[in-house]
Amino acid sequence: MHFTFPQKVLFKHCDPAGIVFYPRFFEMINDAVETLFSDLLGWPFEDMHAEAGVPTAAFDVRFKRPCRHGDQLELRLTLTRLGRSSLSLTTRAVRQDTVCFEADQTLVCVDSEGRPAAWPEHVRARIEDIMEAQT
Amino acid sequence: MHFTFPQKVLFKHCDPAGIVFYPRFFEMINDAVETLFSDLLGWPFEDMHAEAGVPTAAFDVRFKRPCRHGDQLELRLTLTRLGRSSLSLTTRAVRQDTVCFEADQTLVCVDSEGRPAAWPEHVRARIEDIMEAQT
Amino acid sequence: MHFTFPQKVLFKHCDPAGIVFYPRFFEMINDAVETLFSDLLGWPFEDMHAEAGVPTAAFDVRFKRPCRHGDQLELRLTLTRLGRSSLSLTTRAVRQDTVCFEADQTLVCVDSEGRPAAWPEHVRARIEDIMEAQT
Amino acid sequence: MHFTFPQKVLFKHCDPAGIVFYPRFFEMINDAVETLFSDLLGWPFEDMHAEAGVPTAAFDVRFKRPCRHGDQLELRLTLTRLGRSSLSLTTRAVRQDTVCFEADQTLVCVDSEGRPAAWPEHVRARIEDIMEAQT
Repeated sequence: MHFTFPQKVLFKHCDPAGIVFYPRFFEMINDAVETLFSDLLGWPFEDMHAEAGVPTAAFDVRFKRPCRHGDQLELRLTLTRLGRSSLSLTTRAVRQDTVCFEADQTLVCVDSEGRPAAWPEHVRARIEDIMEAQT
Repeated sequence: MHFTFPQKVLFKHCDPAGIVFYPRFFEMINDAVETLFSDLLGWPFEDMHAEAGVPTAAFDVRFKRPCRHGDQLELRLTLTRLGRSSLSLTTRAVRQDTVCFEADQTLVCVDSEGRPAAWPEHVRARIEDIMEAQT
Repeated sequence: MHFTFPQKVLFKHCDPAGIVFYPRFFEMINDAVETLFSDLLGWPFEDMHAEAGVPTAAFDVRFKRPCRHGDQLELRLTLTRLGRSSLSLTTRAVRQDTVCFEADQTLVCVDSEGRPAAWPEHVRARIEDIMEAQT
Repeated sequence: MHFTFPQKVLFKHCDPAGIVFYPRFFEMINDAVETLFSDLLGWPFEDMHAEAGVPTAAFDVRFKRPCRHGDQLELRLTLTRLGRSSLSLTTRAVRQDTVCFEADQTLVCVDSEGRPAAWPEHVRARIEDIMEAQT
């Protein structure tokens, strides 16, 4: 089981070469992670941000195939490692059977001062459930 | 010698947490690379794009410090490896003496069909000059 | 009958004041109009753009209420005037019963050289059907 | 005298049709207004936003000429009307002698609760000076 986020490539994503401008891929990834937090982890960003945050500490991305206007992508998220205050995940953007990009990302849970903070218990429990269901 | 691109953190870059939303860092990197190509390599993107392109194949980024609205950043670009049709570079965003993020990036020169193509001779020569001056 | 486009306010839309940064409203409007063309007018932007385009000639917008992260908006589009090569429409963004912004917009159908061109017959017919159903 | 903000059209601004995607024009306008506030009005957005804000209440925009990648634009700002808590201005984007778009905009000064508030005295004085110098 993976969390899947459908994303059609829209006009706004594309550059003069007719393919997705890469900063837009990072907006897509952020939208997918935001939806994961609201729909699966029960901690919507709009509630979280009074007291905490989940900034990204690192990205390692391979762009394998250009994506064009109108492409129907699926962003598939796999949770790969849970730390006390960190979470690593991989997002694969798939068009039919082709992986267009792969992004390894590490998020850190921080408090309102920006200091690393342990995941809230209910969020940790949901992440563990999802990681178990993936295997 | 490094190519340096000044960038003040503007309102449009920042999120509800008051820090830069990470996809905006990739727009900054793209602006810096575009300016490198026009000002130093003599191959402005607006001329290049009829016949070629330089899509990004990979990114490896470490976000080390949050950047806030009003911060005066310097993006410092170091060219690290030149291949037949590829170029690797590292962008460091520096605020006073602090490195806020480091991004290793690999670009590929492609023809109008998107196939890897050798760098034009005058561009390769300029890249080699810059790499020599860096050492 | 109106074409309605649901849009949750996401993290990426919001600024340090915690409300939507206004250029993001224009991206929302563009997404809604792009979806109108693909889903109702049978002329998806990704097919259109080899031969034609529909640039915006004018906008008249009133922002009435700030929109916050997490707000569930509905963008309601009303087609108001059809010309030989133009189309005027109004987009109202509604949160529950409150209109947050109203945007009057005029699009122009152009050929691949950017010159105004008559709407294709099948598109004109669909627009007329929708305008009739609105009344 | 007008406040002038130079803006080259960059890769990130352009769409698959090779012209500026209109939401990017609004980002340019916002950058120009932000620079007006920091450089001429002595009230940088990054200082203002702890206690106040200047959201846009209305826009009336005419797009007259497409702008292409590489175009050197000048955004010329004219302050047109000063109210107790409002400010109207017009931004003209000029390429050589051609006006590419004209945008009439009304800003409102608000307090930290989002309620209209009188302009601070030092800001009002600077606006009046600029308006006088324009005539």
